[in-house]
Amino acid sequence: MQKYGGSSVADAAGIKRVAQRIVNTKKAGHQVVVVVSAMGDTTDELIDLANEVSPLPPARELDMLLTAGERISMAVLAMAIQNLGHEARSFTGSQAGVITDAEHGRAKIIDVTPGRIEAAIGEGAIAIVAGFQGVSQTTKDITTLGRGGSDTTAVALAVALEADVCEIYSDVDGIFTADPRIEPRARKVPRISYEETLEMAAQGAKILHLRCVEYARRYGMPIHVRSSFSEKEGTWVVKAEDVVQEEGSMEAAIITGVAHDRSQAKITVVGVPDKPGEAAAIFRAVAEAQINIDMIVQNVSAAATSLTDISFTLPRGEGQTAMTALSRLQETVGFDSLQYDDSVGKVSIVGAGMSSSPGISARFFEALSEAGVNIEMISTSEIRVSVVVAETQVEAAVNAAHAAFDLGSDEIEAVVYGGTGR
Amino acid sequence: MQKYGGSSVADAAGIKRVAQRIVNTKKAGHQVVVVVSAMGDTTDELIDLANEVSPLPPARELDMLLTAGERISMAVLAMAIQNLGHEARSFTGSQAGVITDAEHGRAKIIDVTPGRIEAAIGEGAIAIVAGFQGVSQTTKDITTLGRGGSDTTAVALAVALEADVCEIYSDVDGIFTADPRIEPRARKVPRISYEETLEMAAQGAKILHLRCVEYARRYGMPIHVRSSFSEKEGTWVVKAEDVVQEEGSMEAAIITGVAHDRSQAKITVVGVPDKPGEAAAIFRAVAEAQINIDMIVQNVSAAATSLTDISFTLPRGEGQTAMTALSRLQETVGFDSLQYDDSVGKVSIVGAGMSSSPGISARFFEALSEAGVNIEMISTSEIRVSVVVAETQVEAAVNAAHAAFDLGSDEIEAVVYGGTGR
Repeated sequence: MQKYGGSSVADAAGIKRVAQRIVNTKKAGHQVVVVVSAMGDTTDELIDLANEVSPLPPARELDMLLTAGERISMAVLAMAIQNLGHEARSFTGSQAGVITDAEHGRAKIIDVTPGRIEAAIGEGAIAIVAGFQGVSQTTKDITTLGRGGSDTTAVALAVALEADVCEIYSDVDGIFTADPRIEPRARKVPRISYEETLEMAAQGAKILHLRCVEYARRYGMPIHVRSSFSEKEGTWVVKAEDVVQEEGSMEAAIITGVAHDRSQAKITVVGVPDKPGEAAAIFRAVAEAQINIDMIVQNVSAAATSLTDISFTLPRGEGQTAMTALSRLQETVGFDSLQYDDSVGKVSIVGAGMSSSPGISARFFEALSEAGVNIEMISTSEIRVSVVVAETQVEAAVNAAHAAFDLGSDEIEAVVYGGTGR
Repeated sequence: MQKYGGSSVADAAGIKRVAQRIVNTKKAGHQVVVVVSAMGDTTDELIDLANEVSPLPPARELDMLLTAGERISMAVLAMAIQNLGHEARSFTGSQAGVITDAEHGRAKIIDVTPGRIEAAIGEGAIAIVAGFQGVSQTTKDITTLGRGGSDTTAVALAVALEADVCEIYSDVDGIFTADPRIEPRARKVPRISYEETLEMAAQGAKILHLRCVEYARRYGMPIHVRSSFSEKEGTWVVKAEDVVQEEGSMEAAIITGVAHDRSQAKITVVGVPDKPGEAAAIFRAVAEAQINIDMIVQNVSAAATSLTDISFTLPRGEGQTAMTALSRLQETVGFDSLQYDDSVGKVSIVGAGMSSSPGISARFFEALSEAGVNIEMISTSEIRVSVVVAETQVEAAVNAAHAAFDLGSDEIEAVVYGGTGR
């Protein structure tokens, strides 16, 4: 099973290059099923067209429209493979048996019945499947899976077909100890657990979508994240026990990588009366506005006033909505004011080894302090420590953490080729 | 039932205009099913893309690719209608129940099972259906219907849904007594029989494809050919008996129109031995090369030599193939030489009235003679007389015939808006 993102098939030249890779895999004796995204900017162009006729395009029709993108890329890829002398057949999500619920634009896969794919590969053909799309079990309408949909299609088909591995191709070489664009000594991680990958993704690393990693973890499907522009091995995402075993050492690295995220904003509710129910009212209002909040910090109340401050982070795109929802509460809750700060960033260290190694947080905070980085908020999980800092200090924080945990390689090995697929 | 061609939905503005027309029809109390072609040049762009990766794209994948074109136009049209406050749902050929054989690129409709369309219009929605496409009954692969496919989809669905009428919208106002671009006095024909329409189409008139007219004739479905750019009545294509009745006169016009065709070439085989089997050998060779020949003329043989000349017309695009196939026969058949002439044109008069009116051919030839037009070949049917003339004389021949049968109107009423759909 291989999956190619939109940047890998951006134009005819890219499609020919990918076709050759697929043929090479086939020649090496493998049965090959390929999931493909829409070419380059096709999806954005289709959305622009929709917006030209309708300010709020109906979800069913938007799905019908957007699925034309993968239809084009998969057919052209199949042609390119046949032109190299190998049988290839393209299949829509519906034809490939990707059965979903009826939630247009963010459908969930509820079953995969890949009978036609099995028949095609059984006859020696290469099967090309449209990512990102399926068909509703109840309405029989065409659906799209939303963010991370193509990666998820690939993993779901790999599981249904009992593939050995799901290779996910993009324009980066794998998962790195930090973003190579801001940490030049970042090193490619050869193997990483599903859990660490989930934490890295949740904390802003942009390689794999949470959803496809969760699917792979549930069924134990190994993912090989690699570049379609090089032949190098990428990063294997596998079960935690397989990471340790294959590293050939009982002492795996304590910290796997440093993730950062510049997409967050911070809201502080100043002067909240420190009595039961006030915080609940605030977060209920935010939840009702469909805002996803991330980290929360509540200061201890000043004894003299019995007032407290509550801060939380959220995606910047949802900042305006949240501020509006909270403003309406000012009178009933009785807080003093609202502060909005979109010049923050989040830096996280992730590693399965930290749960059994005391002092990790201390070493992280010490490194930040020595680098002159001021910590505004902190949150932790079993395998992660995150801090919110000023956006201008994100780079310094990443570099300091990377050095403190000895993650760097001696040479620069990262190559970043361009954008990412969907 | 309405069908809109590619030029009617060439861009967002065109789609909005068509959406408004459809809504007007719905508001007038009709249930509406719309068949739509791909937007403007989409199909050509997709073919270009295919040719970039493969000199001879496999037919199954080419169908998969091209059907993305209608998928885009139908979804965007449904959005535009919903934006006007009316429920609209788009359906692919497969979803609309257009069942075909497995001949990719030129599939034939073998059944129409429009259950989902009936359900949609039963719930008060407007159904938008992709033209030109279907699904193979045997392989379940997506097929395209080839030339005239969208018009044929519209008529086939109209028949299956027992629609009152199939309206076919393009950028011309209807069927004219001659091409208004070369005959300024051409008059729009209010009603015309299926048979006459078939002859007009076969002789080069570019309004409707033969295939959709044949389908409509078989089931007696009235077609209303009209422009999406105006509100005027167009031309009704109906049963022959309905033309006479509704004209309000027992004496219908003898000649309905003049068609012309500049796409033909003429091949003359010079000096063929005049004995049994020679002509058969020549036409067998042409047939085996898959060439469609149209008119044939064999001169009487010159008594002294027992040699004869055989001339026939064929589409210009097939001229080279035919000449090559015939060259191979020169030795066995023993003819003198081959002449190829692609500077010819065909002009035809069509009319159901002519079978009962003697002297029509004579009047036609006389008019041509008076206009100084030299006739190279002649062929006739029950309701048609065609002549081959030099291409430079086509316009003069059309004008002469138009005047001779008194087809013109007193004022110029034809408006031609642009290209045509598929």
